[in-house]
Amino acid sequence: MKKIVVIGGGVGTFVVLSGLKKYPVDVSVIVSMMDSGGSTGRLRDQLGVLPPGDLRQCLVALSETSQLWRKLFLYRFEAGDLKGHNFGNIFISALEKNSLNYQEVVDTASFILKTKGRVMPVTFDKVHLCVEYEDGEIIETEGKIDTANYKTSKIKKAYLKPKAKSNTNVIEAISQADYIIIGPGDLYTSLIPNLIVNGVNSAIKKSKAKIINIMNLMTKRGQATNYKVSDHVFDLEKYLGRKIDFIMLNQASIPPKILSYYRQFKEMPVEDDLPRFNRGLSNSRKVMRLDLISKTTYNKSKADKLFRSILRHDPDKVGEIIWKIVKI
Amino acid sequence: MKKIVVIGGGVGTFVVLSGLKKYPVDVSVIVSMMDSGGSTGRLRDQLGVLPPGDLRQCLVALSETSQLWRKLFLYRFEAGDLKGHNFGNIFISALEKNSLNYQEVVDTASFILKTKGRVMPVTFDKVHLCVEYEDGEIIETEGKIDTANYKTSKIKKAYLKPKAKSNTNVIEAISQADYIIIGPGDLYTSLIPNLIVNGVNSAIKKSKAKIINIMNLMTKRGQATNYKVSDHVFDLEKYLGRKIDFIMLNQASIPPKILSYYRQFKEMPVEDDLPRFNRGLSNSRKVMRLDLISKTTYNKSKADKLFRSILRHDPDKVGEIIWKIVKI
Repeated sequence: MKKIVVIGGGVGTFVVLSGLKKYPVDVSVIVSMMDSGGSTGRLRDQLGVLPPGDLRQCLVALSETSQLWRKLFLYRFEAGDLKGHNFGNIFISALEKNSLNYQEVVDTASFILKTKGRVMPVTFDKVHLCVEYEDGEIIETEGKIDTANYKTSKIKKAYLKPKAKSNTNVIEAISQADYIIIGPGDLYTSLIPNLIVNGVNSAIKKSKAKIINIMNLMTKRGQATNYKVSDHVFDLEKYLGRKIDFIMLNQASIPPKILSYYRQFKEMPVEDDLPRFNRGLSNSRKVMRLDLISKTTYNKSKADKLFRSILRHDPDKVGEIIWKIVKI
Repeated sequence: MKKIVVIGGGVGTFVVLSGLKKYPVDVSVIVSMMDSGGSTGRLRDQLGVLPPGDLRQCLVALSETSQLWRKLFLYRFEAGDLKGHNFGNIFISALEKNSLNYQEVVDTASFILKTKGRVMPVTFDKVHLCVEYEDGEIIETEGKIDTANYKTSKIKKAYLKPKAKSNTNVIEAISQADYIIIGPGDLYTSLIPNLIVNGVNSAIKKSKAKIINIMNLMTKRGQATNYKVSDHVFDLEKYLGRKIDFIMLNQASIPPKILSYYRQFKEMPVEDDLPRFNRGLSNSRKVMRLDLISKTTYNKSKADKLFRSILRHDPDKVGEIIWKIVKI
């Protein structure tokens, strides 16, 4: 069975994992632990727990338990003291307060949710994400970076404060992987945070795994403002320390209604500039242009204060294409 | 196997159930659903759920699952938005928001906690407890009655607003019971609320079950101010509609430190006035005078805003004595 390591944490990772679940592959997920916005951020600040949100989403995506548990883990309270808090986040926080260490938290939650595969926090350290822009401004904490959509300057550097030790299971999984999947997901708040934890990118460099990138559908103001495909590839490869082997691009057209929703935030489809713009992109990268988008629009809970993408990859399409690459 | 129905809801019921758990008896618990104070009251008001607190305590008391689940269900958050909320209460509320009906909530929670026996809400209706004092004052909602320790007037009448239909399982359990255990517990906020739900006391009257009362250790200002044993018995029998068959009284002495703690609230040990005061108490009631108190003092969570009894019955002693009565 092929060993696949998925790196991410946000909604994009949820989609990839959901798509992969039905195939006979050995999946490990490396989850960013730098989230600091929304319900997760409040729990983190108020209770001193590690951010539960991304971990929870990955656990649910790989869950093979009854519908009820999955519903509970995605349920968000809509009123009172608990307003905006996700039940799964509260559950993981309570587990952390009653466990000896965070591995026990992950193990218990995985057991309850009958998770297929392993979900691995990239680090057990409590650290914050920071970015430095080309204009010199530094923004600290993931939640602030995520909402810094007033910024048009490019991010020059991402780092953690303080530095983080990687989870040893993560390094082992990377070294044994046949494929590493990165993306889709917010470039600087979901994907790159994993790569700047000590030891992760040197493990990726050493690994014989092929790297698959599922390219984001839309640009993201403040961290990937007006980014084209080549910009994403360059930034990812800078932090991966290696070339990407497969790039999966969507080429299906996006409905005008969705485009106009994003336009109000000055966000647009990530332009495929690979054919006309070389910038040193060698031919060793296999570029796949496919229909990857989901036809169903995402509706978020009224109590959810975060901006969420309404256009998403289709889990089945993504799963099928990964399986085609991997099964060989 | 003898069928035992325990009626109550609060900490006293927790103790009885914990004590009974190891014996080969068939236990059903009828749980008051009128609680409106503390974490439970906030969830009830803010989310419109049925009060989860008493249900949760009974489920945990009968739980045969791992220590972790029991710890989680008793865990109270100590900071932030969740401060003072019990995790089990949040869990049951989330279940209610994601279930078709409340029986499903009880079944799911019982399944997860591997509950031995059946835990049965006395009603599925959302109702409030009201009491009328002899001085004419009416207090509405359980939370307010529970904290009305300024009142010295006797309670004349307890009723529900609106009236509540009983859970059909409750009526069936009472009609099949060999023994009904009531108490210990707050007379008007934990025990009697069960008896004023439509159908409950007529079922008790018809039942051939023997009734066992475990008498409270301490008086309770505002609802059992200066109550002696005979006062408790009279009030209980008024709402039971039948005579009690066994009365278990503690006769072990209570440590002076605990007595002085209660003295600041003008509460004292419930005086055993049965020998010298007849008031029509016939000899058909078997009175058992025993050492029933726990030697360990209860420590409550800092985030728990409610007054809690620090003197409790010992579950092992209570369980052993019930077993002696029941096994014959």
